[in-house]
Amino acid sequence: MRESELLEHIYARTAGLGRTHPDVIVGPGDDAAIVRTPAGDLLALGVDQLVEGRHFTAQTPPELVARKALARSLSDLAAMGADPCWALATCAVPPTCQHARELADAIHHWGERFACPVVGGDLSATSGPLVLTTTTIGRTSRPVTRAGVRPDDLICITGPVGDSLATGHHLTFTPRLRESREMVDRLGSDLHAMIDVSDGLVQDARRLAQASGVRIEIELERVPLRTPTRPAPRAICDGEDYELLFAIQPDRAQEALGTVIGRATAGEPTCAVLDAQGKELTLPTGGYDHDLGAQE
Amino acid sequence: MRESELLEHIYARTAGLGRTHPDVIVGPGDDAAIVRTPAGDLLALGVDQLVEGRHFTAQTPPELVARKALARSLSDLAAMGADPCWALATCAVPPTCQHARELADAIHHWGERFACPVVGGDLSATSGPLVLTTTTIGRTSRPVTRAGVRPDDLICITGPVGDSLATGHHLTFTPRLRESREMVDRLGSDLHAMIDVSDGLVQDARRLAQASGVRIEIELERVPLRTPTRPAPRAICDGEDYELLFAIQPDRAQEALGTVIGRATAGEPTCAVLDAQGKELTLPTGGYDHDLGAQE
Repeated sequence: MRESELLEHIYARTAGLGRTHPDVIVGPGDDAAIVRTPAGDLLALGVDQLVEGRHFTAQTPPELVARKALARSLSDLAAMGADPCWALATCAVPPTCQHARELADAIHHWGERFACPVVGGDLSATSGPLVLTTTTIGRTSRPVTRAGVRPDDLICITGPVGDSLATGHHLTFTPRLRESREMVDRLGSDLHAMIDVSDGLVQDARRLAQASGVRIEIELERVPLRTPTRPAPRAICDGEDYELLFAIQPDRAQEALGTVIGRATAGEPTCAVLDAQGKELTLPTGGYDHDLGAQE
Repeated sequence: MRESELLEHIYARTAGLGRTHPDVIVGPGDDAAIVRTPAGDLLALGVDQLVEGRHFTAQTPPELVARKALARSLSDLAAMGADPCWALATCAVPPTCQHARELADAIHHWGERFACPVVGGDLSATSGPLVLTTTTIGRTSRPVTRAGVRPDDLICITGPVGDSLATGHHLTFTPRLRESREMVDRLGSDLHAMIDVSDGLVQDARRLAQASGVRIEIELERVPLRTPTRPAPRAICDGEDYELLFAIQPDRAQEALGTVIGRATAGEPTCAVLDAQGKELTLPTGGYDHDLGAQE
């Protein structure tokens, strides 16, 4: 079964969660969940896991493993327009691990650095690769989901994409929390929708389009690239950028903290990438999807 | 490095967290963290992981794996005197997994059954055993920590201990949420301290004693046993009972939802087990502690 198929199954299963649980404002399928506490706070709940051999290697310094674990989960909060409050960290540790204490220290260090103190967690031994799971909880006054893009919106991105693995960006990026907070403040309800680009620009733009029921057109020449030598059609399918892709009211482009790379139109909910002549490109099959084991 | 050593290191490192972060009421080292939201809700944040081959086997039905994952994390909330609100579930799935969808369905099913809907999560592939991590968030009006036991308190337990693995109890227990809620309501501030018994009665009683700075004496003959044929000195060192061990004001025994098994005294913070003659027993080294890999 593919990861994407299982996720679709889960999203379909839980689509009505907010009807039976009115305190669940946003359930599975966005960057993070949004819930309302009894006293009325809106909290964003994000969780993310790093698996050794997949998201980092046995040679990655523990400092950077810890940083990436927290940063990925905080990038999800940023995508919801939330400010970090608290984190939990759990680790399944293999017997070969030489640096469990260094990793634990680094997790607490980065929690402080990212203004998201690690308040609890869990440890277990495992016979397999190290798995580090980070839950982050944030607060928001105005949650921004994937579902708000409207026709004629401008589509923007907070920074360059592509080549994240080769350049090491995936280990050292700073989650776009400041940009998110400033845009929520500046743009208010004119910030229509947001997602963090973790599985490749095209794939995440497609998710934004599908959640909103609009067509998104990206002009390839406008997309900022991390590495000028990386062909743009590849860079926009690379993963692990951790930039924010967002949609705004067309007259607010001056206040967006990012580059305008396209626009939304009424139409089939997908992402089209246009060349300099406005012609739609055929892209290599892009984005991340994993086999989760054979399903009958 | 032993799991217990690393945990001690983390607890020492984070002991002052509440001073720098006043919204952190209880940090690492209790059954769950307690935080205060901006509008004043007290939330309990618990997290727990199940590793295949350690907490369940490849033959354990997915239904029971999901149930145990949620129940363990909810048992932590019960130990803090918290009611469940929302859960997050993350899974690292090996390529050999035949039942990822069944497991996902069961997680959502048990979230509903335990009144703790699963509002989000994360999936990843792994080359190792399946790791299922469950974060639960609850609310509490009066957090109950491990640190409140006073000399002369009665020590009680909500149910029998021992033989949990052989009997399958570890897969089918119901977290003591109802008992916790009722006792918080009935006993108020006379419910002094609580812990969930996951690593063996003696080891968890010792944690309660150490957190509170008192000596705890357990009378072996009073301890209810799950299996009458299991020798009591072994049963009190078995793990995975998921009962609540708690300390109350001595005149409130009638209202406790459990059995009185001992009392607290001023003295060296440890747990002593006494035989019918009041003589202290020497126990087999008990409780759970795992090697987390060689530390230099």
